[in-house]
Amino acid sequence: MSRAIYAPPTSPRINFARGVPANAAIPRSEIELCVKALSCRDDFSPFQYGPAAGPMRLREWIARQHEIDASQVIVANGSVGLFDLFCRVALKPGKLVLVESPCYDRALQLLRIHEADLWPVRIEADGPVIEDIERILATARPSFYYMVPDFQNPSGVVYSLEKRRAVISLARIHGFRLVEDSRYRLLRYRGEPLPSFHELAPDVTLQLGSFSKLLSPALRAAYLLADARTIALVGTMAENIYVTLGNLALSVTAEWLSRGLLEAQVERLRRLYAPRLAAMIAALEEYSPSNRFLRPEGGFFLGLTLNASVDAATLATQAARAGIDLADGARFFVEPPRQPFLRLPFCAMDEETIRHGVRRLAEILARS
Amino acid sequence: MSRAIYAPPTSPRINFARGVPANAAIPRSEIELCVKALSCRDDFSPFQYGPAAGPMRLREWIARQHEIDASQVIVANGSVGLFDLFCRVALKPGKLVLVESPCYDRALQLLRIHEADLWPVRIEADGPVIEDIERILATARPSFYYMVPDFQNPSGVVYSLEKRRAVISLARIHGFRLVEDSRYRLLRYRGEPLPSFHELAPDVTLQLGSFSKLLSPALRAAYLLADARTIALVGTMAENIYVTLGNLALSVTAEWLSRGLLEAQVERLRRLYAPRLAAMIAALEEYSPSNRFLRPEGGFFLGLTLNASVDAATLATQAARAGIDLADGARFFVEPPRQPFLRLPFCAMDEETIRHGVRRLAEILARS
Repeated sequence: MSRAIYAPPTSPRINFARGVPANAAIPRSEIELCVKALSCRDDFSPFQYGPAAGPMRLREWIARQHEIDASQVIVANGSVGLFDLFCRVALKPGKLVLVESPCYDRALQLLRIHEADLWPVRIEADGPVIEDIERILATARPSFYYMVPDFQNPSGVVYSLEKRRAVISLARIHGFRLVEDSRYRLLRYRGEPLPSFHELAPDVTLQLGSFSKLLSPALRAAYLLADARTIALVGTMAENIYVTLGNLALSVTAEWLSRGLLEAQVERLRRLYAPRLAAMIAALEEYSPSNRFLRPEGGFFLGLTLNASVDAATLATQAARAGIDLADGARFFVEPPRQPFLRLPFCAMDEETIRHGVRRLAEILARS
Repeated sequence: MSRAIYAPPTSPRINFARGVPANAAIPRSEIELCVKALSCRDDFSPFQYGPAAGPMRLREWIARQHEIDASQVIVANGSVGLFDLFCRVALKPGKLVLVESPCYDRALQLLRIHEADLWPVRIEADGPVIEDIERILATARPSFYYMVPDFQNPSGVVYSLEKRRAVISLARIHGFRLVEDSRYRLLRYRGEPLPSFHELAPDVTLQLGSFSKLLSPALRAAYLLADARTIALVGTMAENIYVTLGNLALSVTAEWLSRGLLEAQVERLRRLYAPRLAAMIAALEEYSPSNRFLRPEGGFFLGLTLNASVDAATLATQAARAGIDLADGARFFVEPPRQPFLRLPFCAMDEETIRHGVRRLAEILARS
């Protein structure tokens, strides 16, 4: 009867599993207006086949934003898909790749499909443990280091400027590349932004970015910034593999960006998500003080390290029975961690639901 | 001065290179209306992350159309992209794959990326040379046979019912699968349709289909029909690689199909494209009688086998100088063909342009 205790039939399920934007955050009427505008112009390109690297208008907007040339930008359907394309071009089976520990689970899974030799770098409050990277570099040279330095998925960590510089220095000395996944970068709710790796060191950085969290995930507008040679290689692979992109969705994104709507949207997202993050931190402090967590200043997630011996998969099963969907925390690691870990997304729930969910989760943790 | 002879500056370039739909054939206002309808419903799913296998509404529509279960359908961004996913699941490097000769160049290129061992099967007026398949089967077992049995790309050939049955019989006896690329199937301008391989033999057939030629290529709405186990495997690969699909574009496709707009659209396409095909056949008969070609009853292309010793790449260069863009005909073959081959698309040009283009092309051929 444990089911009845935690989840009476009237109580909706709580999604602590996936980091999705709030429905209310998606500007559907703006998207509709952009489609309308595109559909009455002389230019049919948003409705036709197009270049595999994406509509030039979108590439140019992104290039201007980053003060680079459009030849250094490729657009594709989703940043994981783009990372896959990059791996198909740049990564051979058995090659060494540095990953964060914990690491974005889908990136980890993708790198496993490419049969990369994965080496975890522990993430602490101000970024990676530099000694972990140095220890690996003493005996091997990685192809690249995949990282989410701003509001890391799954922990919420932001790399300090000092650690950014240390990582860049190691990359330059040892000749490996940095793949900077920047998708949460603009979603800062408190504090001041730090320069991105791409800004600090474009010579060793490839930046992945996405409008999925900013506009709508269903448009699949993601991009990769890199040297023109890498972009050309990825573009050729793209052309061979999928011929053309979702031009309508990408042209809508370009239209929306060209209308200057991003800034106001980011403000809206901050106003919507900041109190949700605050509610989650407050609820964890109140209901779950014995478990360790950071207080992120932005992003989509908060990582919780459990002061308990329960394994993450068992916990996920128990929580599911109680109406709470959790991602299996072990999925964020190359090797299962000593202490169980949970990733808690907070954007798509209102404050009351977050508070309620954290309380229920804490009850389950207390029993296990 | 040869440039001036063929292409005075006022003359627009003629695109005999790519098979794209006519701009006038894309129902932009219907697409716009579908977006409008989706953007004011309670259901936010067209604007959110969604299942990697595609929106269930679209899968169900396609399943009903083919009288199968939705578990036997997966939707993805473009049929070449879907074929790539299938190859990632089902094809190991070095495995034998039968391909048509000539073959759709992008499929050929994709199979090369997967390091398949490609064996060409010659295509004649009524389909594949069955003896070519039998000869290969005498010593080896292929993974699958990739084919476009209706209005083949690039030749325009339709497989006869007899040859369909012969191919199916060989597939069943020798235990290989048939990958039926059906994208031009509905675009029949004359004559009666034959049953598809998927209709005749779902036990050995995987069918690729697409709405790119029927609605808009920019929506990237393509599908694969297969047994539920294969679909599940491809779906897992899809989820690992791109997380989610272009839900907005695919939901627009589902909305458009659910409104019953496909039938009228296919009628419109037939009325638009039939006279263009007729114009191309008439122009070839008038200006280029010495070169061999079939008279297709539908589709996007007509294949021309040249009675000349010029190589296809040189010809493409000469034609480009004269304002005509041609695809290098050698790209459609595993090995360069004895006689040069040209693929001529006709859908995106009006009859006058087609006539003019064929006449200019014939002049170039006569000189080379």
